[in-house]
Amino acid sequence: MSVELTRDTKVATAERLYQALAKGDVDALNQLLAADFVGHAAQGLPLGMGGTHVGPDAMRAKLWWRIGEHFKARAVAEDFQTLEDGRLVVTGTYRGSARRSGGELEAAFVHILSFDGDGRIVSLNQLTDTAAWHAALEGDGRLQTIDFRVEDGVATICLNRPAQRNAINLRMAQEFLEVARRIAADPSVRAVLISGSGPALTVGGDISYFLEGGGEGYDRLFERMIWPFHEAFDILSRIEAPIVAAAHGAVAGGGMGFVYAADLVIAATGTRFVPAFAAIGLSGDGGGTYHLPRLIGPRRAAQAYLRNTPISVEEALEWGLVNEIVPADELHARAAALARELAEGPTVAFATMRALLRESWGNDLTGQLAAELRGTKKTGITRDAAGAFTAFAEKRTPTFEGR
Amino acid sequence: MSVELTRDTKVATAERLYQALAKGDVDALNQLLAADFVGHAAQGLPLGMGGTHVGPDAMRAKLWWRIGEHFKARAVAEDFQTLEDGRLVVTGTYRGSARRSGGELEAAFVHILSFDGDGRIVSLNQLTDTAAWHAALEGDGRLQTIDFRVEDGVATICLNRPAQRNAINLRMAQEFLEVARRIAADPSVRAVLISGSGPALTVGGDISYFLEGGGEGYDRLFERMIWPFHEAFDILSRIEAPIVAAAHGAVAGGGMGFVYAADLVIAATGTRFVPAFAAIGLSGDGGGTYHLPRLIGPRRAAQAYLRNTPISVEEALEWGLVNEIVPADELHARAAALARELAEGPTVAFATMRALLRESWGNDLTGQLAAELRGTKKTGITRDAAGAFTAFAEKRTPTFEGR
Amino acid sequence: MSVELTRDTKVATAERLYQALAKGDVDALNQLLAADFVGHAAQGLPLGMGGTHVGPDAMRAKLWWRIGEHFKARAVAEDFQTLEDGRLVVTGTYRGSARRSGGELEAAFVHILSFDGDGRIVSLNQLTDTAAWHAALEGDGRLQTIDFRVEDGVATICLNRPAQRNAINLRMAQEFLEVARRIAADPSVRAVLISGSGPALTVGGDISYFLEGGGEGYDRLFERMIWPFHEAFDILSRIEAPIVAAAHGAVAGGGMGFVYAADLVIAATGTRFVPAFAAIGLSGDGGGTYHLPRLIGPRRAAQAYLRNTPISVEEALEWGLVNEIVPADELHARAAALARELAEGPTVAFATMRALLRESWGNDLTGQLAAELRGTKKTGITRDAAGAFTAFAEKRTPTFEGR
Repeated sequence: MSVELTRDTKVATAERLYQALAKGDVDALNQLLAADFVGHAAQGLPLGMGGTHVGPDAMRAKLWWRIGEHFKARAVAEDFQTLEDGRLVVTGTYRGSARRSGGELEAAFVHILSFDGDGRIVSLNQLTDTAAWHAALEGDGRLQTIDFRVEDGVATICLNRPAQRNAINLRMAQEFLEVARRIAADPSVRAVLISGSGPALTVGGDISYFLEGGGEGYDRLFERMIWPFHEAFDILSRIEAPIVAAAHGAVAGGGMGFVYAADLVIAATGTRFVPAFAAIGLSGDGGGTYHLPRLIGPRRAAQAYLRNTPISVEEALEWGLVNEIVPADELHARAAALARELAEGPTVAFATMRALLRESWGNDLTGQLAAELRGTKKTGITRDAAGAFTAFAEKRTPTFEGR
Repeated sequence: MSVELTRDTKVATAERLYQALAKGDVDALNQLLAADFVGHAAQGLPLGMGGTHVGPDAMRAKLWWRIGEHFKARAVAEDFQTLEDGRLVVTGTYRGSARRSGGELEAAFVHILSFDGDGRIVSLNQLTDTAAWHAALEGDGRLQTIDFRVEDGVATICLNRPAQRNAINLRMAQEFLEVARRIAADPSVRAVLISGSGPALTVGGDISYFLEGGGEGYDRLFERMIWPFHEAFDILSRIEAPIVAAAHGAVAGGGMGFVYAADLVIAATGTRFVPAFAAIGLSGDGGGTYHLPRLIGPRRAAQAYLRNTPISVEEALEWGLVNEIVPADELHARAAALARELAEGPTVAFATMRALLRESWGNDLTGQLAAELRGTKKTGITRDAAGAFTAFAEKRTPTFEGR
Repeated sequence: MSVELTRDTKVATAERLYQALAKGDVDALNQLLAADFVGHAAQGLPLGMGGTHVGPDAMRAKLWWRIGEHFKARAVAEDFQTLEDGRLVVTGTYRGSARRSGGELEAAFVHILSFDGDGRIVSLNQLTDTAAWHAALEGDGRLQTIDFRVEDGVATICLNRPAQRNAINLRMAQEFLEVARRIAADPSVRAVLISGSGPALTVGGDISYFLEGGGEGYDRLFERMIWPFHEAFDILSRIEAPIVAAAHGAVAGGGMGFVYAADLVIAATGTRFVPAFAAIGLSGDGGGTYHLPRLIGPRRAAQAYLRNTPISVEEALEWGLVNEIVPADELHARAAALARELAEGPTVAFATMRALLRESWGNDLTGQLAAELRGTKKTGITRDAAGAFTAFAEKRTPTFEGR
């Protein structure tokens, strides 16, 4: 029973939509949207907000509420036009700011709305200046020491002070925390790739910077530098996506933390891992005293720490510090391919495996068996698992959507 | 001062014995039995009840009370005959049921009693239909997916769905728990051997069975299947006998748990260990997230879980997942020989070592040193240790009785 | 404004000094000593008391109060002479006893005091019979089974029952605890070297001694022997200096504890590590159930314990039980050189690394990252770290003083 809606009715409905969104009014939204509502948000939006959202609930959870979580912003409509087929085109601007960075948001939009016979909105196609959204999240402080991007489910962290062989200064430590936070907040991320530009993944703490900045006392300097650096590792240890590191050249001191943070490590021929701390009278940061005894055993870890004996990439493979050695000129392609492979995997299972393997060291067998049972029940009801069982029976390779 | 006893006196004493046993009346038993009483129970009885028991206390603890613990049954005497040498022969039937399985017990017996001059029973030789006792313990549900037997101190668990390459379905999980419980309850077991019939130790969870049984929801199915499976591993981790696994063919998914459960693993050439979970979107069961990082290191464990990379038997040896590789046609003989070797070892020391190694991961050095001291005091007062010290001094190889 | 002091004034000042020291009177000492006071104590004194101490506070903390902590003794002046340059020479005797051992102290001394214009003591040069101080610490019970010495910052523990291949009896266990306590109390120790004289590092517990001493019951014997043995390992695990072990010949049973106690292990070609416990029906002591699964993995550790399979030195290197294999005739020189190298390292950083690596197994990543941050702040303010940063910038090799 379709009724012809007037342009004014459509405009009034659209205006009520923007008011309901500005207020976060769920009841109003439910009256405005059809039960079979489908939204399409611009693909390039940050934080996994882009794409098709089926149903009013999905649209709220994955687009509108997430905007509200990360931005203090509203959609300001400026013009309303009807198309020949009856759809309403709204043009306007999102205005506001990103909550954490404070960066200003001013992003043009076009919304194309269609209506059912009861006057409810059945679809909304959104286009917007997605780069403006990313820029707002970054705020005034654009990343200077790290290249960061999220593409096709892979978040890439590329250390980028090549002239200093990616030596870690305060700025890099802070930016590393910033990107770790973005990854943790972005459900579109299904794998992470850590790499470095220039001749080395990283030579570790920037000692020249220590000497400049040490006037306040090295304890205060290290507090300021290491706190964000360690907080980032703590966050990355809990994200729901697997992490790949690409190691090359020297990987030294606290910089070995990038290797420890990864689940899987691909290293170029000739890579050398250098603990470095004994040479400068420090006890070590970056999580090495947690990871190294578990990865290569307490005896070798003690030698690395006390004697600062470099670990060759061949030893690293033999001892279980890296998974694979590849020719240097293939490193980045191979690591990126692995990250893509993981981004196409069963993400819920990966997240659960990561949590189980992380928590394993604090559990006894009884507790870990119970955690594995909970994990299997949780992953057993995912679409990915159900699809894989069927694919197995049909002797097909399964496709995973990450849910 | 020997007095000739009449047949009636002997029969009356025997009848009082059966009454005392039916009631569990210790005082009455003590009056009926001579201090130097010796009992001989049929060798084939389950739960380590067979063999010679010296003294009334041993007979109670190792035969009569153990019957009471596992069976609700009584000895019904049917006929009394005296032999020329004065001994009394009682024939009759044990009647009742096994407590856990509910399986009916009806087992013929012959008891040959001899008496001292005071009319007390000085010996009792028991013969009985031992197969009926085993059958009662198994109940109506005879084991269908696992071959299980206890011989010469070695309990053998042989997975037995060869046509399905020992894929694990609900029945096998339940039967595995059943045999784990029997082993834990049987003090005659001094070593355990886990193996599989057919082309593979086990390919892991039976996915065809998942698809049939998943109608109730995979979370419920996995709860029902994995709970008994994990409970069995938990029980086996605490038994007082060492465990050997014989691995061959594919060992996949949760089936790797049988390898983790063992203290020592012998593998046939060509064996492949396949984590499998990532391929079917599950996070993993069988204890792998506890054991694998400890056995082969976190980096290789992450690769096994996230990439489902098979582990060859050569890698398994190099990385510390198995102890020995043998030709496939020697596997079962070699593993059985090892189990027998262990069954002839110092069982109390083995049990204590197992407990110390298991608890090591939850203790700090101070606590573990204290536990080792307690363990050494406990094992130091065993007959096995004392005998071994003397044998050492006399340059002999010691013989161990397991106590 | 210098005033000529009379001999009597100087003698009276010296006598007040000895009274203040006898009472531990800080106020009196402060009045007697010039602010720029410098003391020189005899180099050979035990417990790191020898050497130059700059300022009254250092002299109190590092010489006088430490004497009071370990000795109940006083300096008895016997003769006072003035030198031509105005200095006062006091001769006398330290009399008393060592607090723990009860050993008597009677050690001749010469003190040479110089004074400033205000009559305050500006320097004190002490010479004394340093051997008498060491002997008092050892008490009546001189070490019989262990050679122990501290030289140039290296404490050497050399097991010394070569005819018994350094088998461990009660006396050795007790003496091992004694030297562990001395090391823990001696801040001059910057590295420890453990070795053995004769054909083997140690064959473990002395079974002949067990058989002689077992009359009281093996549980009591092992309580008496293992308690001090384990207490020593517990103390050594917490000292602030790194530990090197030199392994050769057989290293068996609880004697493997000396290898576990070390941070770094150098082994001679042909060394064999033999768990031994299964052969004598004991569950194991010396910390092996803590260390071995972590060092070589649970599977190999289980084999070592349950089957008593010897570990060759090549396996020990491959599996991470030792750091280096050297020709037997170079073992002691190489191990001593390594201990000296460590004794010249950044001792505070080494102590902190040792603590972090030890505590790693009880922490989760979050806790360990926090501990690493605290450690970096603590070591970052040492002279060694500051000097090393500067040396790094100037492309020099740093020199470490251990503070």
